[in-house]
Formats: sequence, structure tokens, C-alpha cells
Amino acid sequence: MSYTTELEKLFHALGAPLPSPSQLSVEALSVRTPIDGSPLMSVPVTPLPELAAAIDRAHDAFLLWRQQPAPRRGEVVRRFGERVRQHKAALGRWVSIETGKLLSEGLGEVQEVIDICDFAVGLSRQLHGLTMASEREQHKLLETWHPLGVVGVISAFNFPMAVWAWNASLALVCGNALIWKPSEKTPLSALALHHLLCEALSEVASELTQVSQVVVGGRAQGEAVVQHRAVRLVSATGSSAMGQAVAVACAPLFKRTLLELGGNNAAIVCPSADLDLVVRAVAFSAAGTAGQRCTTLRRLFVQREIYPTLVARLTGVFAHLPVGHPLSDDSLVGPLIDEAAWIRMQDSLNRARALGATVHGGTRVVIEGLPGCYARPALVEMPGHVGPMREETFAPILYVMPHDN
Amino acid sequence: MSYTTELEKLFHALGAPLPSPSQLSVEALSVRTPIDGSPLMSVPVTPLPELAAAIDRAHDAFLLWRQQPAPRRGEVVRRFGERVRQHKAALGRWVSIETGKLLSEGLGEVQEVIDICDFAVGLSRQLHGLTMASEREQHKLLETWHPLGVVGVISAFNFPMAVWAWNASLALVCGNALIWKPSEKTPLSALALHHLLCEALSEVASELTQVSQVVVGGRAQGEAVVQHRAVRLVSATGSSAMGQAVAVACAPLFKRTLLELGGNNAAIVCPSADLDLVVRAVAFSAAGTAGQRCTTLRRLFVQREIYPTLVARLTGVFAHLPVGHPLSDDSLVGPLIDEAAWIRMQDSLNRARALGATVHGGTRVVIEGLPGCYARPALVEMPGHVGPMREETFAPILYVMPHDN
Amino acid sequence: MSYTTELEKLFHALGAPLPSPSQLSVEALSVRTPIDGSPLMSVPVTPLPELAAAIDRAHDAFLLWRQQPAPRRGEVVRRFGERVRQHKAALGRWVSIETGKLLSEGLGEVQEVIDICDFAVGLSRQLHGLTMASEREQHKLLETWHPLGVVGVISAFNFPMAVWAWNASLALVCGNALIWKPSEKTPLSALALHHLLCEALSEVASELTQVSQVVVGGRAQGEAVVQHRAVRLVSATGSSAMGQAVAVACAPLFKRTLLELGGNNAAIVCPSADLDLVVRAVAFSAAGTAGQRCTTLRRLFVQREIYPTLVARLTGVFAHLPVGHPLSDDSLVGPLIDEAAWIRMQDSLNRARALGATVHGGTRVVIEGLPGCYARPALVEMPGHVGPMREETFAPILYVMPHDN
Amino acid sequence: MSYTTELEKLFHALGAPLPSPSQLSVEALSVRTPIDGSPLMSVPVTPLPELAAAIDRAHDAFLLWRQQPAPRRGEVVRRFGERVRQHKAALGRWVSIETGKLLSEGLGEVQEVIDICDFAVGLSRQLHGLTMASEREQHKLLETWHPLGVVGVISAFNFPMAVWAWNASLALVCGNALIWKPSEKTPLSALALHHLLCEALSEVASELTQVSQVVVGGRAQGEAVVQHRAVRLVSATGSSAMGQAVAVACAPLFKRTLLELGGNNAAIVCPSADLDLVVRAVAFSAAGTAGQRCTTLRRLFVQREIYPTLVARLTGVFAHLPVGHPLSDDSLVGPLIDEAAWIRMQDSLNRARALGATVHGGTRVVIEGLPGCYARPALVEMPGHVGPMREETFAPILYVMPHDN
Repeated sequence: MSYTTELEKLFHALGAPLPSPSQLSVEALSVRTPIDGSPLMSVPVTPLPELAAAIDRAHDAFLLWRQQPAPRRGEVVRRFGERVRQHKAALGRWVSIETGKLLSEGLGEVQEVIDICDFAVGLSRQLHGLTMASEREQHKLLETWHPLGVVGVISAFNFPMAVWAWNASLALVCGNALIWKPSEKTPLSALALHHLLCEALSEVASELTQVSQVVVGGRAQGEAVVQHRAVRLVSATGSSAMGQAVAVACAPLFKRTLLELGGNNAAIVCPSADLDLVVRAVAFSAAGTAGQRCTTLRRLFVQREIYPTLVARLTGVFAHLPVGHPLSDDSLVGPLIDEAAWIRMQDSLNRARALGATVHGGTRVVIEGLPGCYARPALVEMPGHVGPMREETFAPILYVMPHDN
Repeated sequence: MSYTTELEKLFHALGAPLPSPSQLSVEALSVRTPIDGSPLMSVPVTPLPELAAAIDRAHDAFLLWRQQPAPRRGEVVRRFGERVRQHKAALGRWVSIETGKLLSEGLGEVQEVIDICDFAVGLSRQLHGLTMASEREQHKLLETWHPLGVVGVISAFNFPMAVWAWNASLALVCGNALIWKPSEKTPLSALALHHLLCEALSEVASELTQVSQVVVGGRAQGEAVVQHRAVRLVSATGSSAMGQAVAVACAPLFKRTLLELGGNNAAIVCPSADLDLVVRAVAFSAAGTAGQRCTTLRRLFVQREIYPTLVARLTGVFAHLPVGHPLSDDSLVGPLIDEAAWIRMQDSLNRARALGATVHGGTRVVIEGLPGCYARPALVEMPGHVGPMREETFAPILYVMPHDN
Repeated sequence: MSYTTELEKLFHALGAPLPSPSQLSVEALSVRTPIDGSPLMSVPVTPLPELAAAIDRAHDAFLLWRQQPAPRRGEVVRRFGERVRQHKAALGRWVSIETGKLLSEGLGEVQEVIDICDFAVGLSRQLHGLTMASEREQHKLLETWHPLGVVGVISAFNFPMAVWAWNASLALVCGNALIWKPSEKTPLSALALHHLLCEALSEVASELTQVSQVVVGGRAQGEAVVQHRAVRLVSATGSSAMGQAVAVACAPLFKRTLLELGGNNAAIVCPSADLDLVVRAVAFSAAGTAGQRCTTLRRLFVQREIYPTLVARLTGVFAHLPVGHPLSDDSLVGPLIDEAAWIRMQDSLNRARALGATVHGGTRVVIEGLPGCYARPALVEMPGHVGPMREETFAPILYVMPHDN
Repeated sequence: MSYTTELEKLFHALGAPLPSPSQLSVEALSVRTPIDGSPLMSVPVTPLPELAAAIDRAHDAFLLWRQQPAPRRGEVVRRFGERVRQHKAALGRWVSIETGKLLSEGLGEVQEVIDICDFAVGLSRQLHGLTMASEREQHKLLETWHPLGVVGVISAFNFPMAVWAWNASLALVCGNALIWKPSEKTPLSALALHHLLCEALSEVASELTQVSQVVVGGRAQGEAVVQHRAVRLVSATGSSAMGQAVAVACAPLFKRTLLELGGNNAAIVCPSADLDLVVRAVAFSAAGTAGQRCTTLRRLFVQREIYPTLVARLTGVFAHLPVGHPLSDDSLVGPLIDEAAWIRMQDSLNRARALGATVHGGTRVVIEGLPGCYARPALVEMPGHVGPMREETFAPILYVMPHDN
């Protein structure tokens, strides 16, 4: 069964309409799977006027939605979560197909969607404010919290479902409306998941189904979400440069932002550490999701006396990490998202080499019949804390250097 | 279909074993429905040694249960709640049959079970303590909350499911074990509901199914629960006298108590009140659940200038409140729980009369083919705030008197 | 005694050095009292290099300050608050002299400084984070809150002490450092108050006195505070335009902002309202602090049937509100901050007139020997919700219009 | 200067009336200092009718006190705390004289009084309840917290000021009234401290000075406090037997209790421990306040391989701990509270010996001119976890035994 056929089956099972090329759109995204680079489906890009209209519809629905009792809003989220639970296997598999993450990671991501729904349902009966002692006799004070309006969520390819769900479940319970612009690399995960929310909405509050919207596109669509007057909070995941642009765009309109941006995490290994645990933890942290996570470990500072031993062990482990098909139980590292990611990875390694670094691994892994971008995780011994070691490269690269105290 | 047959069907649908008279028991409770006084089933009373053994098993399970991550404990409660949701119609009907409450009240009670489960599942990811600023440099303080042990729940006939569920869902999520002694008038509701929890437990944590226990009996069983060393908190619902006895028994062992005892609620009606709203609200508060609720309105103080008008209107409404079969959509007032309740009601009315009160209603309502204790709600014009007006009588009696400021 | 002499006495009583024109500064602010426009003192403007150095010193101190136990930081705030309490009368009088607020308002503002200190001292023993239930066995989670760094406070002329104190007391207790740029119209209040904090710091933590800094100047100094890398949060009070500029400047550096900006508060009066209470409340809200508060009431929508009555009563009251010397017990309205404020007020009134409004009051009040900008509060009957009624004018103008439902 | 003279000076400095033997009392307590057993003063015992009247007065004041804005109640506590701060040296010295605690411990206790006041003042502006999301449209829920009434505080000799202050400051801020029955061994500390609260009360709320009461006496007075109807919470510090009696007495009246009872703290020492730190920490925990603290370390389980070393070191340290005059800077261990304490200590040691224990130290220390009960701290090597090791003896005894895992 081709991935496209599988997608059609998934949408069918969810009761979701397939993205239709006949929709009124001058443009379409051609979505491909990183597994072998094959095309999955063409998805019409949302024209900007339609995007603005979608936000307006969300805002209209918001005016009623905010008046629903919070437990009723929680009931929508509960039913959405139940649907996700029911379709977990298929959704998790789809996350893997569209992003190239391991199947276990795809399933884990869907579980996060489920968990946040359970949590948000509980919150729907706890939306507490405070009462306060007044300094005036016979007076009382109390907080009243109002929802913001339409919340814009701009999500990244590496977590195509969970990050939106975190935002969406809490925003909905609190009485906000939603507009979602997923990564142009992973719109199908978004359309599938969003359909389940729409179904839950129509069951509980059929007059309010427009309260959540999803739009498809790239930078232009993202900017349009950020700029629309009715969008009062923008939750964006991506690079620091993108985050900066969002922050600057939101500032003059006094919009709020929730920015989940780049990271360049470091660990320090002391001589007293349990090296077995270190090797396992480092390999998992550095190579998981092929290094395409903001929580990826990229920098390792090793106390000099154990440096040779640990580097030798890590190099050995990296050399044998099973790189391969993400749906296979044998794989521990799947493909990069696309060829551009591979090029950025090589560029970082080359710049490290130019600074005198020794690079172990980081080479292309060619897999019969799978023309995706598979890369062996790289362990890079750096001569100092310089160059690409100070940047985030979204690829399985671990920079290592000794330290002395 | 007889109620007994319906009960057998319910237990069958739930997959629960029927209470068996062949169980090792010298005693049995004969449970009757207040609808027509007919017997529902004989339920073996738990012998005291078996009761102690059940608490010991709960305590053994507690030692492991408290080590489960709270979200896993929440998963048990979630699955329990889902089962209740699935069987809501049958359970709600059963509450009505066993207690005589209206069907809408029975269903409402089951919904409360469901709601508290949703809430508790959310809490299972929020069991927060506080960290605190220390006054010592380089020091940190943090709270660690420990579960108590076995929590004893002694529930009353009028809420045969919800009160236990409030206690049980929160106690379980926090890591406690449970022993439940339901009212001897409503053990069947308890056995049915508890079975669903046992199923949820065995799905999620089959080694820990003993963490919740239910026992059947009366005062002796209740006292045994209170006295058992492993029971560290007693949550008891009932009369103030019962609560006092529980408090006194718990005190020397430094046990905690949660006591939900008698009430004698009053309302004051001012001349500016919207009398339409008053009449509806008072009738509902005073006659709902046939006055057998701790939240029943029993005392009404009416500003003298509107007293005649309001009393006339209320008397009219009370005289026509449809008293009848609790499963019928036409009824607004069902039967009292038993003949003893009827006798206590008449005793209170007689004492009021002896003090000079005028009693409207309060008479027996005879319904063809329904030999239960059906009573017309009584409106009692009191000459002062004296006698039975200062007591809780678990029956539909509203004492009214004028006030002047 | 001239106000300048009184200022010298105040600084002497506080033990604070007088602003010295001999300080290394190419520029000086000439601070005047709105009471009669007379000059109080020339205050040297902080040159930008010295401003940057001050922030650097605050940041250096921050690195140690954040390591102090919170209760020790609270002890600084407690001693600061005690000093303010001790000098309340003189400080409150000074607020009146420098801002033209009524003496009671000046004293009230100082009381707010005292109150927030009491509050912050309590918080210094409560800086709570949360512990959280983990979904992993044998794991615990806990929040750790870190201070931000240097907090920049840019305050406005109308609350020359309290707004900074709100920010400063909480920021200090939480472990942050401070840089304060007060309004160029009221630097003397700032210098006086800040001196008391420095004294408290030097008593408790003499090595850390640089943790709080005050600088003098206008827009250039404000911008320099916002731009400095070490400033991680900017708390700014002023116009919406200023707030927008701050937000835009902070966004690309991911700085936080606390913006206390313009307001244009409205009230709706229904026929059931107690008009005596309305008249008093409206007069106080609209004319208090000569309308120079973000909480000033500027728009009144009056149900048509009571409109003539209420407007007549308010017009009468406004016509007789005692406008005069803010230190006099007889005054209820003091002067505007300066001639520019008067011109802006007249401009708004003229634009309202051009739209067909009827203006009552709003004229210059000439007081023998007091050449300040004293204005009679204006009540403006608007033909619609248009023009200046939709803007904030920092002056005692109340726009009134009838409404129909 | 005799201690009695010093007491007179203290009361004079505080502006407090001396306890007068001429007061209407058939009985008096003869208070002695443990330093040398000499009498300090005779204090009239409060007759039970006067005690009941005092509680009634507190309750009358409560009815007004609870209506004061919380910040005003906080102002009373703030002024009380300021007075304590001002008199800290004299009060701390007095704690030492009346209890025999070291001067540093006496001063530390007074500091705790001061700290809790700072904390409570902060709370007086934070008495938060929660608002909650309702499941009904257009409805709001909010918590309203009511004070309880009169809070009874029964305190022990070893913390004659701090424990009451913890209870009193929080109870007052929350709107409760107070009745304090201090230990019959330390009423003078109570009278001194309470006077400062009365002064603060009379400054802020002169009509409400009766809101806090102190009574003098022993068991009968304590029981009368517990039994009085208006006392709604009893906070009692003392033995577990006393706590049990309080709990049992409170239970039938549904009163709340806060019980600070006995302890028998244990520590486990593993081979990886830093023994220098262990020795210092154990000596401080076991011998501080002459072992007369509920937080005293009484049981030490030492891993067998380090047992001989650690016991030898601890024995050495115990043998040389300076036992002596608590006001002397050279002392680390002061006297026991009285001869009865000495007898109980010897009894425990003898019972341990009878079980085969080896007792190091535990002997009487005779100090020239100081006929108090000075005892060398005892280190008792136990053959098992039996006998007195399982009990709390309020004396400097550390039971030690080896353990194997």
C-alpha cells in the first residue's frame, strides 16, 4: 500500500474530507514523505482572503464560545481527546510518515495530545481566579479572567500534532478561538487531527464549529495570521529568527506571544558520572528524532580525565546506531526532513572541520529502495567553544570538548 | 419487568456478580425499593473478620499503589469514569429505584460521578506541592505530600453513588486506598458502581485491584471501619449524632475526618424579591428529593408585608406539586425512603401544631398500586423560631414565619 | 519658606545629597512646581555613558543579589518601607509640590509605597514554585524560578513614587536589580525616595548598594534604558504611543515588558442608580488629580430619561468644585502639570465644540499669586461618541452623552 | 541584679504591669528559673470564672474584629512585630532566664516571633479565596472564607513565645480572637509578650483590645479553654497524651485542633556520609535546648562498618560539650527545666541499662553557685530498637545502634 493510499484510508477512517486540488486555490503544496521523498498529496494553499475570512469566522464564534460554561468547553476537549485515543495507532503512524520520526516517537506524540486533553478537561472545572482582602470595610475584590480572542498557532514540522494540541486544548477551555497554520512540510497531520476537533465541536456545540480553523501555507500565511487584528496571541514554534519576526510584528499591536524557539542544549560530564548511563542518555538525547528537536543535546563538555574514554565509547555507539526506515522496529534514527536539512548539516560539519575539529560519522547512509536523507549521527571533537558549536543545526550532530574543572 | 429482574439485568450488563445469599454470612440485608416497598434482593452482610481482612488487603495494596505515578492512578479513574458514562442511563435508573429519587435526580447523581472523575483525572497531573524560599543561603525547601493510607467512606442512602465517588476519585488519585460502607438501605447501588472501579483497576493495574473495597452492613460495620487502625481518614455522611460519634472515635487515634452532616438551611425573603423566582426556587429547594437532602431548604423568613402573598402562593403550589412514581416524567416529588421517615415527618408536624403552627399539606398521598410512603410537602406557618423548626427532619417540610426587618 | 528651601530641608532630613549642578553633565533639567510655575532646582541629566555604566553596576550587583536568601532581600525592602513610613509627611508634601496633586493625594501615594513594601516583605518568605507529579516512577519535578536581571522602570509624572515602588519592591524581593528613569518633570521625588532605598541597602547588604540605580533625563535616557542589553524587563508608564515604542524596541531582544498605558474609562448610568452616589463618584473620578490619571473617568453614558437631571446636577457640582492650591485643605482640584497640558485640554474642548458639543466649564481659573495652570473641570455634552471623546486627554474633561437602552 | 529585678525592669521597659499577688486569686504559681532554681515571681492563677469571662470578652471583640478590613488587622500585627523587634534583646534574655535555653536560642525564638509577624502582615493583603468556573451559564462561583471565632492556644515551656506567635499572628490577620494559656512554668514570657500585642491593638483599634487574652494556670485552665463553647479551634503543644485528651474533648463539639505533639526523630548514617558534618549535626540536633525540643534527634542508626568510629567520635564530643549557664557565651548545653525532668531522664537511662545498653554520659553536672539541673548529654548504645528508645524523653539522650543495610 502506498503512503498516499494509507493517507486516504486514514482520512476515510477519521471521516475527514481529503484535501481537494479542485478547491479555489491558485497554489498547492506538494507534500512528500522524508522516508523516501515520494509525494504524498498536493494540498491547496489557503488564499489570503480566505485566511482572513477564516479568522473572522473564528472570531464570530469566539463571541459565543466565551459565554459557554467552561465545563461545556471542556466537554468538547474531552470528546476530541477520546477520538484521538481511538485513532492513536493510525495517527501515530501518520506522524512518522509525514515527518520521518520513528514510529515510537509518532505514537508518543499522539499520546501527548491525549494527555493534554485529559489535563485540560480537569482544568475546565478549575479556571480559578482569586478573591482578595480589601482594605475598605464592607468591600470585596475578585479577579475575573477573560479569554483573549483568536489564538494563532504556528507549528513546526517536527511536532506536527502535539504543539498545536497543547495550545489548542488550553486555549479552548479558557474560551478562546483558534487559527492554526501548520508547517508547510506537514499539513496533512494537521488536517487529520483538526478534523477530530471539528467533530467534537459539532457534537457538543454545533453552532460553534467555526471556533477552530486550520489554514495551509508558508511564510505568507504565517505572516497573515500574525497580522490579523482579531488574533490576540500568537504561539509560534520555529527558529529564533522566526520568533524575533513574530515578536516584532506583535509588539505594536500589543499582542501576546508564546514563542518556542531554538535551543542549543549542553551537558557537562563529571568524573563521578556513571558512564553507562551517560552513553545511553547522550545517544538518545543527541540522535533522537534525528537531532531535529529543540531539546536535542548538541554540546557535551567532558572533564578532561574521562574525555578519551567517553569519546571512544560514544564514537563506537554512534557508528553502530541503526539508521533506517522510521516505521521499522529496528531503526533508532530515521531520515532528515529533506535535502536542505542534509545540506545544512554538511555545512556545519565543514565549518567545524575548518576550525580544526575531528568529525566522526555525519556521512550519508544509503538504504536500498529508500531515497530519503538518511545521515549517520556525527560526533564532532571541537578544539574550542566556537563556530557551529554555538549555533543550532537541526541535525544529529554532537559537539564534544574537554573541560578542566 | 420486576425491579429485581431489572437489577439482575443491570448487574449482568455491568459484568458484576450478583450478591449471593450463599456467601459466608450469618446475616443478610433485605433491600427494598421505596417506590412500592417491594423487596429487591437479600444482600449478605460482611462479617466483621472479613471486613477487617478487606481493610488489610486494601492497606497491602496501598503500599504499592502510592508508588504508582499519579498519572497512572489517574488512568484508573479515567477508565472508571468512562465506564460510568457508558452505563449512565441504567445506573441513574437504579439510583431512583433504590432510593426513590426522581429519575432526573438519579441521572444527575450519576453525572456527578462522571464529572468528579474528569476533574480527578486532570488533578492526577497537577498534584502540586510548593517550593519555598529559604532564609539560608544555598538552601531550598519543598513540600512532599504523602497519601494517608486507607480512606474509609461511610455514605448515606440519599446519595448512594456520588458522595463515595467524590471521595474515592480524589483519594485514589492522591495514592490512597479505599473501604466503602454504603447505607444499609442502598448497598446495591454501591455494589454496582464499585464493580466498575474494580474493572478499571484490573485493566490498568491488575496487581492492585484490592486497593478499593466495599463492605455491606449497618452500624456495626460502620464502627468497625472507623476503628480499624489502617483507616487514617473517615469520610462520613449522615446525621450530626453519627458525625459526633465518628469524630469521638477518631480523635484518640489522631485520625482525620471529613464529615458531611445535617443541615437546616434558611432563606430570608425581602420585599424587593422577584416572587415568581422565589416561588419556583423555594418549591424546588424544599421539596426536591422529597426533602431528604442536607441542602434542603427548611426555614423561610418572609418580610411581614409580603408574607400573606407569598405564603398563599406557596401553599397553592405545594398543594398541586405532582407527587408520584419517581420514574414517571410527571412526578416532581417521589416517596420517602421508608415508613420510619413518614413517622418522623408526622411527629415533627404534630409537635409544630402543638406549638400553635398551621400546617398546610403534609398528608399521605395514596397512589393506586404503589404502596410506598408518598407524602404531600408540608408548609408550616410557625408562631416563632422554636421546636421542630430548629431541627433537621429528613422530609419535605418547609417552616415559614414573618420577620420585621 | 520657598519650595526650594523646603526641598533642601527634605533632602537634609533624608540624609540625601542635593542634586549638584557641578556634576559632570552638559545638560540639566530645570524642575518647576505646577503650583505657581516657579523653578525648584536644576537637576543634572545623566549622560548616556554614565547611564550605561550605572546599568552595568546594577548588573554586577545583581549577580550577587540573586544569591541572597529571599528573606534577606525582604529585609532590605522592610527597612526601606520603614524609612518611608517615618518620612511620610514630608514625602507626601513633596509629591504635591512637584506634581501639583492635592496633599491628600500626595500622602496617599506615599502610603501606597509603604503598603507595597509590607506586602513584598511577606512575599519574601513565600516565593513559591510548584512541585509536580511525574508520570515516571520514582521521579519528581519541581519549578525553579530565576530572577530576570536588571529591571528598567520608566515612570510618569503623575505617580512619581508609587509606580516605581510597586515594581521595585517586588523586583528586589525576587532577586532582580533596578534602573529607574523617572519623568523629567518629577526627578526630585525620585531622588528623594531612591535615597531611602540606598540607605536600607547599605545597612543590610553594604556590598550590594549598586543593585538599584536612578538616572535623570528624558526620551534619550528612556531609550537607552530600554536598549541596554542587561535590562531584561522594561516596566513603563505613559502614553500608548510610548508603550508601543517600548514594546517594539524590546521585541527583537525578547525582553519582557510591563506597560501601564493610556485609558479612556467609561461609565454607564441606569435609571435605577442612586444619583447622589453617582454625582459624588463621577466628580471624584473625573476631576481627581485634575484628570491626570489613567484611571480617570472620561466618558459618561446616561440613560436618556435621567440625562437632563444628572447633567444639570453634575454641571452644578463642577461649577463649584474648589480649584486651588494643592496644599490647601479647601482645594479639591489642583493645577495641571504645565502649560502644555492646558493647551492640549483647550484643543480637545475646541474640537468637541466643532463637532457640536456643549462645553460647561473648562475655563482658566486665575488665582491671585499662583500663576500655575488651574482649570475648571469641563463637562462636555457630546452629540455622539466621536472625536476627542474617543481619545485620552490628560485633563479634567468629562464627556457626557445620552443612551437609549 | 537578681533575675526578679531584671524581670521588673523588663516589664517596666515594656510598659507592662507586673503580675500582682493582690489580684483576685486564691492560687498563685511560683515561677522559678531553671538556671539556679531560684524563684522569679508569684503569678496569680486565673480563676475559672474569670477565664470564662475573658473568653467571652474575646468573643465579643471577635464580632467586630472580623469586620475590620484584613489590612487593618495586619497593621496591628505589624505594630506588634515592631515592638518585639525593638525589645528583642530583653525578651530573648528573658526566654533564657525563664526556660534555661541558651541566650542564642532565646534570641532566635524572639526572631521567630518577628519573622512570623512580617509574614502575616504580607498575608493580610493576600487572604485569597478562589473564584471558580460554573457549569451554569451566566453564573459565577466564589469562595468566602470566614474566621472561626476564638482560637485557644496552649503552649509549652520550651517555646514560650514563638509557638503562640505563629498561631496568634495568623489567627488575628484572618479575623479570629485569641485566648492563650501558656505553660505554668513560663507564664512571665507570655505576659510580657502579650502586653506588646495589647499595646499594638490599643493603638490601631482601641475598641478591640479585648480580642486577645492571656490566662495563667495549669491543667484546669487548659481544660477550661478547650471546653469553652466560643473556642472553635484549639492549638496545643505538648505531649501526645495531652494532644489525645484535647482531640477527644474537641471532637464532640466539632472543634478544630492544631496539635504539635511529641516526636522521636531518627537519622540513618550511611558509610558515604561526611563524618565531620555528621558529628556536628548530630551533636546540635541531640543536645540543643538540652534535648527539650520536639525536633530533637533521639535515635541514630549507624551502618555497622562505621559504627565504632562514629560512636567513638560522638562519645568524645558529648563528653566535652560545655554544659553551663545558659546566658554564658561559653555554654552549649543549659539546664533541664526542673528536677522532675532530671528524674525522668535518669529513669530512661536506667531502663536502657536494664536492657543491656551502654550509657556514656548522662550524669549530673555540678556547677558552683548554680543549683539547677545540669546534665551531661547521654549517648546510649542500645542492643536493639526497644524500651525507652521507642519513647520521647524530654532530655539530652541520644540512642545509637548499628544497622546492616
